[in-house]
Amino acid sequence: MFSAMQKHAIRNGLLIPEEEAVMPITVREVQQNFSVYEALRLVDGHVVHLDDHIRRLEASASMIGLRLPSAPWQDWIDLLCKGDGLDEATLRILVYGTAEPVAFITWQPLLSYPDEYYEKGIAVTLYNGERFLPTCKTSNLLLSCLALNDAHAKGAFEALLVDRSGLVTEGTRSNFYLIDGKRLYTAPDEMVLSGVTRISVLRAARVLGYEVVMEAVPASRLGEGHSMFISSTSMAAMPIGRLEGREVPCDIEAVLAFTRLVRRWERE
Amino acid sequence: MFSAMQKHAIRNGLLIPEEEAVMPITVREVQQNFSVYEALRLVDGHVVHLDDHIRRLEASASMIGLRLPSAPWQDWIDLLCKGDGLDEATLRILVYGTAEPVAFITWQPLLSYPDEYYEKGIAVTLYNGERFLPTCKTSNLLLSCLALNDAHAKGAFEALLVDRSGLVTEGTRSNFYLIDGKRLYTAPDEMVLSGVTRISVLRAARVLGYEVVMEAVPASRLGEGHSMFISSTSMAAMPIGRLEGREVPCDIEAVLAFTRLVRRWERE
Repeated sequence: MFSAMQKHAIRNGLLIPEEEAVMPITVREVQQNFSVYEALRLVDGHVVHLDDHIRRLEASASMIGLRLPSAPWQDWIDLLCKGDGLDEATLRILVYGTAEPVAFITWQPLLSYPDEYYEKGIAVTLYNGERFLPTCKTSNLLLSCLALNDAHAKGAFEALLVDRSGLVTEGTRSNFYLIDGKRLYTAPDEMVLSGVTRISVLRAARVLGYEVVMEAVPASRLGEGHSMFISSTSMAAMPIGRLEGREVPCDIEAVLAFTRLVRRWERE
Repeated sequence: MFSAMQKHAIRNGLLIPEEEAVMPITVREVQQNFSVYEALRLVDGHVVHLDDHIRRLEASASMIGLRLPSAPWQDWIDLLCKGDGLDEATLRILVYGTAEPVAFITWQPLLSYPDEYYEKGIAVTLYNGERFLPTCKTSNLLLSCLALNDAHAKGAFEALLVDRSGLVTEGTRSNFYLIDGKRLYTAPDEMVLSGVTRISVLRAARVLGYEVVMEAVPASRLGEGHSMFISSTSMAAMPIGRLEGREVPCDIEAVLAFTRLVRRWERE
């Protein structure tokens, strides 16, 4: 038997049973994915970097001309957490730009990954493609979906996107970094989604004595012996141990130094 | 008062009230728009070019690795038409590639346009962008949505997409053509959605004595005095009378010759 607990969601400020968190497929904005979203971490009853996420949600909405509801996000999240007795979770805010915008907040158990991923590094593949409006977190995710399906089919955890110039921009749900001595390379802001965790990684780089170089790395340079990692809200900094099926060297400790700072700053 | 008639939809072969045609926003494939669709014309109880639409639906699904249900589409459409007493309508097939695929058929009143659009031509704008997987009819439609919003804001009916090389590929929901003497230019198959009506337009071109040139036209060549038109299932062939706010000459009769043949062949 499954738990009889009724899971809930928020719809425009109202607590509803989760199975009622649906959208009609007859509505144009649903058919065209005219929507923006955020994934957030709730840890010890505290939403990590909520302000940064809401700022990005507002920026994404503004870029595509989607009008957000004027939402007291913290209050709505509190309502959901109280309703379902949540202390930790991965939260998702999703707003459809219908005539009257519809904002959902849903949750799932806090995403976390096996220790092995951090101790040995994860496997990544390469996928040719560029996200439409890369700085904007919209539901226009088919490229990410196909790239990730391809990675999973090859036993990898993430796909790195390679643009028309052969540059590695970002992962399907992560930002990408390469460590070359005391220089940390990552793609410039205008080429990628400005990850909330990326802000922390770049801050950590300064603390750890790296020079940050905002340049996308050519895919041809990967596997030349430099350590690589990805970051996201759920992953923090995660080392890369395999690329396109081949083992690649990675200074695991150097990467975990980033993860420790990222996670420490979540409590601030 | 609105009509009390209960509108229906088909969901995996079952006739359901239309308001139950919904998808849960908690499902990954919904969040990532892992879906394909078709829009069809029902005229005099007959679905126009159903085989062509289903062939394209299957091709789109195959390209993104989406498994279609084995659906007796004509039977499902008949069930919907009988349920709602339909003799003419614009039908929409939409399939989500969830773990168990979900196929909907919904309808709206037959899309048609004022005579004026055909007699004077419609207004179009230009929009820089390339559809992801252009030959594939998926719900990954944000570019089309933004381009069309931009066109509407400028009082235009359609936006023509211009690719990175400055070539006009297609409209947001139409194919594009330019008439140069007895040559008809349109973008090659691999650059655009292979419109079901485009098949008829190219057939009509041969009947009308045009040489078809499968080349995308540079945006810089538009407005040089050549007639232009667009085509779609709902529009047939529709002349272009304004480009980016300026009036452009168009041989209306030449375009309507295409529309007449396209509509005649719908009855075959």
